[in-house]
Amino acid sequence: MKKILSLLGFFSCIGLTNAQHSDSVVFSKIYSEILVNAKAYDWLRTLSYDVGHRLSGSPGAEKAVLFTEKMFRDAGADTVWLQEVMVPHWVRGEKEEAKIIDSRKNAQAVPVLALGRSVATPKEGITADVIEVYDFAQLKKLGEENIKGKIVFFNHPFDESHVNTFAAYSKAGKYRWAGPSEAARYGAVATICRSMTNVQDDYPHTGAMGYNDSLPKIPCAAISTNAANLLSRILKADPKVQFYLKMNCQTLDSVKSYNVIAEITGTEFPEEFISVGGHLDSWDVGHGAHDDGAGVVQGIEVIRTFKALKLQPKRSIRAVAWMNEENGVMGGKVYAEDALLKKENHIAAIESDAGASSPYGFGLDMSETQRNKVKEWAPLFTRYLVWNFDFEHGGTDIEPLKKHLGTPLFGLIVDSQRYFDYHHAASDTVYKINKRELHLGAAAMTAMAYLLSQYGL
Amino acid sequence: MKKILSLLGFFSCIGLTNAQHSDSVVFSKIYSEILVNAKAYDWLRTLSYDVGHRLSGSPGAEKAVLFTEKMFRDAGADTVWLQEVMVPHWVRGEKEEAKIIDSRKNAQAVPVLALGRSVATPKEGITADVIEVYDFAQLKKLGEENIKGKIVFFNHPFDESHVNTFAAYSKAGKYRWAGPSEAARYGAVATICRSMTNVQDDYPHTGAMGYNDSLPKIPCAAISTNAANLLSRILKADPKVQFYLKMNCQTLDSVKSYNVIAEITGTEFPEEFISVGGHLDSWDVGHGAHDDGAGVVQGIEVIRTFKALKLQPKRSIRAVAWMNEENGVMGGKVYAEDALLKKENHIAAIESDAGASSPYGFGLDMSETQRNKVKEWAPLFTRYLVWNFDFEHGGTDIEPLKKHLGTPLFGLIVDSQRYFDYHHAASDTVYKINKRELHLGAAAMTAMAYLLSQYGL
Repeated sequence: MKKILSLLGFFSCIGLTNAQHSDSVVFSKIYSEILVNAKAYDWLRTLSYDVGHRLSGSPGAEKAVLFTEKMFRDAGADTVWLQEVMVPHWVRGEKEEAKIIDSRKNAQAVPVLALGRSVATPKEGITADVIEVYDFAQLKKLGEENIKGKIVFFNHPFDESHVNTFAAYSKAGKYRWAGPSEAARYGAVATICRSMTNVQDDYPHTGAMGYNDSLPKIPCAAISTNAANLLSRILKADPKVQFYLKMNCQTLDSVKSYNVIAEITGTEFPEEFISVGGHLDSWDVGHGAHDDGAGVVQGIEVIRTFKALKLQPKRSIRAVAWMNEENGVMGGKVYAEDALLKKENHIAAIESDAGASSPYGFGLDMSETQRNKVKEWAPLFTRYLVWNFDFEHGGTDIEPLKKHLGTPLFGLIVDSQRYFDYHHAASDTVYKINKRELHLGAAAMTAMAYLLSQYGL
Repeated sequence: MKKILSLLGFFSCIGLTNAQHSDSVVFSKIYSEILVNAKAYDWLRTLSYDVGHRLSGSPGAEKAVLFTEKMFRDAGADTVWLQEVMVPHWVRGEKEEAKIIDSRKNAQAVPVLALGRSVATPKEGITADVIEVYDFAQLKKLGEENIKGKIVFFNHPFDESHVNTFAAYSKAGKYRWAGPSEAARYGAVATICRSMTNVQDDYPHTGAMGYNDSLPKIPCAAISTNAANLLSRILKADPKVQFYLKMNCQTLDSVKSYNVIAEITGTEFPEEFISVGGHLDSWDVGHGAHDDGAGVVQGIEVIRTFKALKLQPKRSIRAVAWMNEENGVMGGKVYAEDALLKKENHIAAIESDAGASSPYGFGLDMSETQRNKVKEWAPLFTRYLVWNFDFEHGGTDIEPLKKHLGTPLFGLIVDSQRYFDYHHAASDTVYKINKRELHLGAAAMTAMAYLLSQYGL
């Protein structure tokens, strides 16, 4: 494209009420401040490089708490504190091993990651026949006679036909979460599952699974999409193929960790709280940059921006870095339970936990009346390309606030095309994040926090 | 993000008229077909790897015409042909050289690219004092006494405060296009300009410039943003710094080239045409993947999808790969002039030339009545996250159709955050393109072409 386009000035005042014009001026200041001066990307780089991944209970998570506390202070918050949270402590142990062994005993190593919460294999590993399964219906049909003693290979590819990749994740994800117990029901000795991603590459994508306590707990792991395709191909030609899996992950005693919280106190209604942020923990590979370092640095960027612009919120705004979203949501639970205990009035919560791509809306998990009020604000956001208020998901860390206090929830909605390329994999690094896209998310959150702080809900 | 979200089923039928329900079914088929089976990305990879960059008149452009003709045939078009176009033939010559030379004669090489159409320096290069200028007002104020005999350094950074990066390009781009002649007006011997990009890196970004024929033609080049920052810093400490520039680019005689055209003939109104596509030429660095291999493969994906789904358009649809957008727009001009000569009825044209990121709308360059009719179709697009019909730019290659035939123009609007990171630079490679984002653009174009083919405008 050669032409110098004039795309300026569109939407400038379309659909705004008179009362919204002054908010429109504030929006403009917020977006300019963030697009030009935001620190979120620099903070995320530090969180990615100097801290790295940070699974709950790990040394990385401990380091992350300290760094985040410092970052929150640097942002100029009125108060910064740590909130104690007991978190589960699952460790991967030594690097896992996996091999495809054909009927001639040729072994081919494939990249593998134990699923979070999995039990270990016996020390010498498990070698067993493999049976490929597309879904639970097929698993049931095969039954114990075909499954007993085998490794079940859940090969349920992402359904590419959905525009929103979360829809594909929703369909495939249950084989990661519930697949191991369902396979154990028919006597399987382990499960491997195809990674939850659109891309064909060599990265296994881990993630939490949940055992059904009434069934035997069997080891479970993810293999990359390339390895899944390879295994499926080999199985078709050689049904006697075996799989070797060795993992020594384990769940240790719970340990003390923290949510990190920064607050600007409201000028008129200091006892009404708006929480914004994401989760500080990540899986134990890569940088946890999209998931969810992004949400953490966007949350604190809200505070920095209020201070930089000398915006005085009528209600108190808290940036929160919740601990342990990935395998327990203990941070979110403690945050809400503590608020309940203290009878705090949490009037809204905003979470960013869908990656750092360009934002285009907010999911609204709240009453119809509240949703309609928020939709009246939509024209203020349109010129910033934030237009969609039709989804209804808030966020995992803020759900307990709704459950215990009835707090209305906002989930930042961003372009989903690239998210699962990196999600829960070693490839989720800060290199995969575009600075401006990250900052646009922070700006949308700041703008929404501003309206909530002025008008409540 | 751990949770399995259910974001399905939103917008499904919101705002559709009864008559639109059958179109909605076709839209669903188009999106599924393209997201699952599109060939656009594979074609783009071939165009990027096997052909590479393809500036008008170059061997790469010749190869690109042949490959594109084959690709268009493979897509199953009813007819494929080449349309002769005489194109300018500017060549870069040997690799350019540039150095910052401080007052102690320490020389530091910096990456540089001549601007398209620039004249060469003398064989031995030019060494001269440098004067940094932010804008034309400052240039005028400095005047001949400060500029004569010097190299003018246009250091006008992208204005980060705009959400739409094309707005920043619009502001900074004039120093690339018109800067050389404006500097020559005051006796400058050459110009260098800061690359037109948001990122700080070592890639110079080239692009077309235009000489004012009444002023001396001086050599002009782009330096990377890192080099621009360095030079600016050095100049502040050491105003006696000089710059060395050596380039032997030249404009040769125009040569014969081609637009590549593929057609599906309409069943009811075969004499009414809808053109879709992008430009086949690129700058002579990188792959020209975002600019504009993407538009070319998206255009032919429209044809492939109509054939794969056995959709029979009432009006004729043409995929067009226009030649020479970057430095002459001769392909676009010939295409329109030929249509005028043959009295063809071009009822609409759709161009994709803003990169391969996720689409979110169409620019509508047409009458108010036509625009309103298109906006009635908007609800069909919303569930596919294509929502914005407020911009008014169509596309450079299709502008002559509007000029000569009054054809209404559609420009695919995509997320602009990453486009200028790679634009006109060696970094514009196919690696920077996400397959699904590219395919979503093709799907939006196919859906719009479908409506136009059924209903006209």
